[in-house]
Amino acid sequence: MDANSVGLVQTQKVTFAEPPNEILLEGGQKLGPVTVAYETYGELNDDRSNAILIVHALSGDAHVAGYHSPEDEDPGWWEIMVGPGKGIDTNKYFVICSNVIGGCQGTTGPASINPATQKPYGLSFPVVTIADMVRVQKMLVDHLGIKKLLNVIGGSMGGLQVLQWAVSYPDSVESVSVIASTYRSSPQQIAFHEVFRNAIYSDTNWNKGDYYDGEPPAKGLAVARMLGHITYLSDESMDKKFGRRLRHKEEFGYDFSTDFEVESYLRYQGYKFVERFDANSLLYITKAMDYFDLTEKYGPLPEAFKKTKSKFLVMSFTSDWLFPPYQSKKIVKGLMANNKNVTYCEVKAAYGHDAFLVESETVTAVIRDFIAGVARGIPENNRTD
Amino acid sequence: MDANSVGLVQTQKVTFAEPPNEILLEGGQKLGPVTVAYETYGELNDDRSNAILIVHALSGDAHVAGYHSPEDEDPGWWEIMVGPGKGIDTNKYFVICSNVIGGCQGTTGPASINPATQKPYGLSFPVVTIADMVRVQKMLVDHLGIKKLLNVIGGSMGGLQVLQWAVSYPDSVESVSVIASTYRSSPQQIAFHEVFRNAIYSDTNWNKGDYYDGEPPAKGLAVARMLGHITYLSDESMDKKFGRRLRHKEEFGYDFSTDFEVESYLRYQGYKFVERFDANSLLYITKAMDYFDLTEKYGPLPEAFKKTKSKFLVMSFTSDWLFPPYQSKKIVKGLMANNKNVTYCEVKAAYGHDAFLVESETVTAVIRDFIAGVARGIPENNRTD
Repeated sequence: MDANSVGLVQTQKVTFAEPPNEILLEGGQKLGPVTVAYETYGELNDDRSNAILIVHALSGDAHVAGYHSPEDEDPGWWEIMVGPGKGIDTNKYFVICSNVIGGCQGTTGPASINPATQKPYGLSFPVVTIADMVRVQKMLVDHLGIKKLLNVIGGSMGGLQVLQWAVSYPDSVESVSVIASTYRSSPQQIAFHEVFRNAIYSDTNWNKGDYYDGEPPAKGLAVARMLGHITYLSDESMDKKFGRRLRHKEEFGYDFSTDFEVESYLRYQGYKFVERFDANSLLYITKAMDYFDLTEKYGPLPEAFKKTKSKFLVMSFTSDWLFPPYQSKKIVKGLMANNKNVTYCEVKAAYGHDAFLVESETVTAVIRDFIAGVARGIPENNRTD
Repeated sequence: MDANSVGLVQTQKVTFAEPPNEILLEGGQKLGPVTVAYETYGELNDDRSNAILIVHALSGDAHVAGYHSPEDEDPGWWEIMVGPGKGIDTNKYFVICSNVIGGCQGTTGPASINPATQKPYGLSFPVVTIADMVRVQKMLVDHLGIKKLLNVIGGSMGGLQVLQWAVSYPDSVESVSVIASTYRSSPQQIAFHEVFRNAIYSDTNWNKGDYYDGEPPAKGLAVARMLGHITYLSDESMDKKFGRRLRHKEEFGYDFSTDFEVESYLRYQGYKFVERFDANSLLYITKAMDYFDLTEKYGPLPEAFKKTKSKFLVMSFTSDWLFPPYQSKKIVKGLMANNKNVTYCEVKAAYGHDAFLVESETVTAVIRDFIAGVARGIPENNRTD
């Protein structure tokens, strides 16, 4: 555990919509109660103006940084960015991150117990949307007594949530940071998700989502994750990382054992994922992403962004073919058409979509400086205390 | 059936390596007998100098053009290119195409009966390579009495075979055409194949390849094919073809039925494939592709191409992200380093990897003119009759 880590942290929980209350979801169904798992690091300042909400990507969770125990080998998923003196500096900011609704890392999702049946929801869990995820985050932020967030930041699916925050709660966000993301899921993104889902459906253990008292659909989920990993890298980064190196052999096996390092990597990632992720959650969360389209809900982008009040940072990566830079540029154009305050940064990076999770001085500096600029620019009379 | 079709055609068969003969495969195992399914169109001329061998891609077969019966709704897989007056003009050329060894469309493969056991080979079928495929094609070409092919042409996996022809049999090919292909499978290509294979492995019906007297692993094979189709298209072409159009509904279903056209297309393609393709063949053929690396077998490209004697046409497509143009350019550079006769054409096309299967005046003209030039250039004393 290095000195720049937030160190030992705990996931906390809070429950909303206790009976008789329920949340009315975007799809028309009702849900309650809803428990939210979240972590916070740093201290909320006296005027409550230094809070940053981090929103996670498809497979993420509330555990952004630090360690859950002294024995923990792996820190949170954005340890490189979040901690004392880091890009998102926990000496200066109060950092919040929660697991999304529909997830499986402590927040209510398909693996949660349905109070009406005392059994896991499975596929009886209602379909949720990005707007539903953001609505539950807003409840958490209200619960923490924060009227206005200094910044909401997230990459990939996190970026979808960030945009939804800017549109749904313009008075509650001073600034937002949209990284490697899009204003609407493209057919190619939907197509990959549909393959993820079909990989799960095709595993007989899936049993239409009803597997919590038996074996989970581990093989199908692993296949989905293997595919995911290809899309998060780039052709170039895979060539650098693996090339055509063989795995524990000098010559081809001429059989169906593992020949190449890249095969071994994918299988390892696939089966490691199964240990921590629920297959049904992957179904629900990919569906939420597929439905996301600001233009479908709010009209063409200039129209959709009209009511936003936050400063925007939009960042994309040259080698990201899953959320290509042109998608970010459309967001920027939609904001500029409204004379909104937007900073755009296309980072030259070989790593692909996951570049925001890889140590990078450029990415760290851009995020740090953007948030610092926003923090400096808050006039006294705009503070929300 | 239009007037420009070769019309009604039949798949023919010939068997090599009858007992006691066997073929020694590159992986060291022996195989025999080997039946080859092939089709021919047009007439072989008197000096046998007008033969063109077409080699197929991963899921292709010997049926390149024409119809198998008057009721046939779909013609062969390259009908747009092959026929009277077309890019590969059957009025001028004698066209041959055979199904690859390891395949499932008439040529010996894992679904064939093993004469030793009288049961289908399944996974006891030996692993084959691209060089093995080409070797069997050479036996067919010899059997047809052709000493030198005017051209060997193929896209994607076909291009791998074409390069192998040029390297293995320099005296038997006047020219070769390598389309949307590579000189070595990249880790990203291998990675997609490993996902295909794991999708099949994860289907309990697969039963380690022993399913021929039961249900085939249709779900796993369909998932593999769905993924394949994404990689054969481009982000742009998927946006044009499907956008975010919904399928038979006005609003999102908020469930796990099909919402988007693109999901419906993938599922349709996936399950249509299952009707005509054997899952084990997909394992064997992708493995053959993964192993392909001219530089591993023959040294750096300038070295690998040293002994080739044919004229080369190399063609790539701007939007092909599975076999990106840079891979073709490396082939061209390797040939130029040897002062070989090479024509390179990077075609501006939005369709992605499958662009060579889509009607295009440019592609047709380039192929027609290249082959015509080669045919004109054969001096009398080089003819092989």
